Amino acid sequence: MSDPEIDDLLGASVFFKCEQLQLTGSFKLRGASHAVGLLPEDCPGVATHSSGNHGAALARAASERGFEAHVVMPENAVRFKVDAVRRNGGQVHFCAPNQAAREAGLAAWVERGFEAVPPYDDDRIIAGQGSCALEMLEQVDGLDTLLAPVGGGGLLAGTALAAATREKGIEVIGAEPEGADDTARSLALGRRVTNHQPETIADGLRALIGERNLGIIAERVTEVITVPETTIVDAMALIAERLKQVIEPSGAVSVAAMLKDPERWRGRRIGVILSGGNLDAERLVEAWRR
Amino acid sequence: MSDPEIDDLLGASVFFKCEQLQLTGSFKLRGASHAVGLLPEDCPGVATHSSGNHGAALARAASERGFEAHVVMPENAVRFKVDAVRRNGGQVHFCAPNQAAREAGLAAWVERGFEAVPPYDDDRIIAGQGSCALEMLEQVDGLDTLLAPVGGGGLLAGTALAAATREKGIEVIGAEPEGADDTARSLALGRRVTNHQPETIADGLRALIGERNLGIIAERVTEVITVPETTIVDAMALIAERLKQVIEPSGAVSVAAMLKDPERWRGRRIGVILSGGNLDAERLVEAWRR
Repeated sequence: MSDPEIDDLLGASVFFKCEQLQLTGSFKLRGASHAVGLLPEDCPGVATHSSGNHGAALARAASERGFEAHVVMPENAVRFKVDAVRRNGGQVHFCAPNQAAREAGLAAWVERGFEAVPPYDDDRIIAGQGSCALEMLEQVDGLDTLLAPVGGGGLLAGTALAAATREKGIEVIGAEPEGADDTARSLALGRRVTNHQPETIADGLRALIGERNLGIIAERVTEVITVPETTIVDAMALIAERLKQVIEPSGAVSVAAMLKDPERWRGRRIGVILSGGNLDAERLVEAWRR
Repeated sequence: MSDPEIDDLLGASVFFKCEQLQLTGSFKLRGASHAVGLLPEDCPGVATHSSGNHGAALARAASERGFEAHVVMPENAVRFKVDAVRRNGGQVHFCAPNQAAREAGLAAWVERGFEAVPPYDDDRIIAGQGSCALEMLEQVDGLDTLLAPVGGGGLLAGTALAAATREKGIEVIGAEPEGADDTARSLALGRRVTNHQPETIADGLRALIGERNLGIIAERVTEVITVPETTIVDAMALIAERLKQVIEPSGAVSVAAMLKDPERWRGRRIGVILSGGNLDAERLVEAWRR
């Protein structure tokens, strides 16, 4: 998808990859279905912990193979994301809202023989998410830049590996909220930071960057741009106005990176991943209820 | 575009025609470009009065042929619709916000030799809007029902004429807000009502049904369903949640007609026109600014 006015605004040719149109509303279905596709037929099923889109994607991928999917979710997970896991055939198990409880909850299912499919720090997941950039490179000729958001880093690492399959150099740039800038800080520091108190509306990008994800990103990604919250909302509005697409805050962060410094993109041919569109639709329309 | 959960909800096969993705964000570009395409090369340009999407569409269609477009708009027209006319190359002329002033404003441009292109009560416009249903009938096999919103009636009349090109009977159904139900009342009364004080969030459907539009609709449309305001907003939310599309209230009215009586559509194969997606995007995202 593209829009002449956005191109004019940036003096660039911008091509949007619409992952909000995936069946579960985000790119997460790519990694999940790749991982599930690799499992043997006699696998009893899969398990993960997730507060968001990965849980729904894994449930969907599992149900398409007839596997059970157990998703450990913090008891404060947002209602519509819990519903999404169930709608896609997953079984939800609530736990206390902390990392230890989530991991313990998952471990219990793994002990019973279920295959753990983590959300991002996993080679199968990274490879699956990379299919998004591979498709863009096939669909649009002559891209010189790929832009993707980074939370746990599955999508950005996969994007970087996909770009590396091309002989011609393609610059890969990441984007994350200022309020969840652990990837940018980790790159600056040369090691994975662990002091991480994310505070951002981009709930899909609150995860700490994964270990193997950071390694791939440090080697292959030019830069991770951090963006303020207001610019994320500006990006959501621009995408709604020009592309008529509903994008969740996390999905709009790569567009926010362009808006933050519009001059930077002049003359480029950029593939931008809109990573997902799962948000509380009632909140979106509430102004029309008044 | 279609969605398995919406199909489940209605027990039907529903195919959405996404007119919000037109260059000017609504189906209006169809009629406008058809009308403009019929004009001779030496035409000095076009003129209309409009408070909304027709003005932007006409400006765009005219600029693509190198014609001037003069759009008389009431001085209380919403800002982003005025901007849209200008962005598409039209010249905006403000007038007092009443029908007499609008018509007088337009007459002044017609006297100077500009071709009047009215928004709906015009054969060229009706034929152009009908191309939307013609495309649906080509794109989806076996549709038995077409559902479109009705304001002035250009789209619904064109849809009915398009359906009549098929040998197999196709039922055409219209939808309008309860607060702008002049078409339903006109059909019940057997003549065009003129007492019309529209009060609805669906600003694109506030126009009074056109004379020739009503004639076509009375002959060929099964029913015009009226929907309450809350159901229109429910429909906007459903479209955002399931299809990830931004649809303006007027564009969501046909979906609202399905939600109003979900049982009615069971077993059908329905083509639904999402007629446009032009709304104040800032209003859409305001909950994320807080």
